[in-house]
Amino acid sequence: MRYKSISSTQNPEIKRVLQLQEKSRTRRKEGLFVIEGQRELLLAQKGGYEIRQIFFCLELIPQHQLENLLGAFPSDLALTQLSEEVYRKLAYRGGSEGILALAVAKETSLDLLELSSKNPLILVAEAPEKPGNIGALLRTTDAAKVDAVLIANPKTDLYNPNIIRSSVGGVFTNTVATGSTSEIITFLQNRSIGIYAAALQASLPYTEVDLTRACAIVVGTEDQGLSKEWREASTQNIIIPMRGAIDSMNVSVAAGILLFEACRQRKFT
Amino acid sequence: MRYKSISSTQNPEIKRVLQLQEKSRTRRKEGLFVIEGQRELLLAQKGGYEIRQIFFCLELIPQHQLENLLGAFPSDLALTQLSEEVYRKLAYRGGSEGILALAVAKETSLDLLELSSKNPLILVAEAPEKPGNIGALLRTTDAAKVDAVLIANPKTDLYNPNIIRSSVGGVFTNTVATGSTSEIITFLQNRSIGIYAAALQASLPYTEVDLTRACAIVVGTEDQGLSKEWREASTQNIIIPMRGAIDSMNVSVAAGILLFEACRQRKFT
Repeated sequence: MRYKSISSTQNPEIKRVLQLQEKSRTRRKEGLFVIEGQRELLLAQKGGYEIRQIFFCLELIPQHQLENLLGAFPSDLALTQLSEEVYRKLAYRGGSEGILALAVAKETSLDLLELSSKNPLILVAEAPEKPGNIGALLRTTDAAKVDAVLIANPKTDLYNPNIIRSSVGGVFTNTVATGSTSEIITFLQNRSIGIYAAALQASLPYTEVDLTRACAIVVGTEDQGLSKEWREASTQNIIIPMRGAIDSMNVSVAAGILLFEACRQRKFT
Repeated sequence: MRYKSISSTQNPEIKRVLQLQEKSRTRRKEGLFVIEGQRELLLAQKGGYEIRQIFFCLELIPQHQLENLLGAFPSDLALTQLSEEVYRKLAYRGGSEGILALAVAKETSLDLLELSSKNPLILVAEAPEKPGNIGALLRTTDAAKVDAVLIANPKTDLYNPNIIRSSVGGVFTNTVATGSTSEIITFLQNRSIGIYAAALQASLPYTEVDLTRACAIVVGTEDQGLSKEWREASTQNIIIPMRGAIDSMNVSVAAGILLFEACRQRKFT
């Protein structure tokens, strides 16, 4: 195993990685982002992401475990050992696992999205603001194995470290595309994919709708709900009957309930 | 409207409220806790909580709005105006709404729990650690209108400010009881309430189980799952078929999916 070592936090390469962790603009400009954690790295590789460089800290990951992990990657991959001080400066999480990687961002343009299923199940999230909420959605859509997650009018880039962390790697295992609300509506309509908007107005209970056909379930933010554009383009507005005293639900819980009702109707196939 | 005013952060009364915000031990000892926010306060009152004192900050809540809110409470309730500095010292949240209240904790002993329904729907959460997860569960169980939430081997008291906040007030609208795992198992068995433990071993898909009968859905932590005791006492272990690459789900998303399947089977009545 050949690698170089860095033990100064002032090293220019370290400063660059830090910028990629912290700044959406740098990520967009360079088309690169940082992956943290062993499980996340393996899920990214499984998801077809190109890994450019791996950083490790032997104080935090045992050598045999590292070698095991590296076995999954080409032998000429650039490896860099970091001192614990440098590693901790770069690592975003507590309880870190001694592994960071530089990876190439995927293009998420809607034009590139191909759906292989004839009756796809899609989740659309409109303008989600909190990275933690986007991550939680992507963890849930992984479990429901949706065909695609479409983010309408995104407020953040997909490779925000908080999204990666809260998705537990789901950001790598889902097929994600982004676009404006009208682009996504056109995309769905052109393919005769039913639009089921989670809304309060003129809604049917979600259990009374046929979700076995090609369909997109559309959720908005907890504060704002969905824009008028979605409610008007909707094939049918749907609602989760809530019978308590609180008038809203966490968006990833709501998405989980709606998507797994679709899974149930589709007999989990 | 009569009230006293406090503008010093060194005031002993302020120090006491701060202790109640910060220390579980103080809350337990005094049987009091702090509610923050207008909506939360109204939900607590609706939930039958005794409110002892209200603190407000006229820089943050307009007088007419305050008077409106106070209309819901007895006219002899102790009122205290806080300077903005004092208020911000006590307030736990950003975007605060200028209202804090001291309230009396409810006794959550299992012995006091009475179930009015003949076929209750109950959620049991074993040893949830993160206040944010407990809060998210309580928000979800409010929406599903379960008959009771039982917390087995609790790691924190119910009136932790983070639980109150993340439950969006659901901590006040649910019937909550706590006990050891064996006490809760005995409680359920004595009442012939079916135990459906979310587990990986020997499990049926949750959609194949009759959840219209008296039943308790039992969830563990994301890291540990459920203890052997629950798996052995289980009427039937159930599983949510997950078809992605990630092997766990957020516990409140999982609870939402399971509880709303019960609601669906019960036709939301």
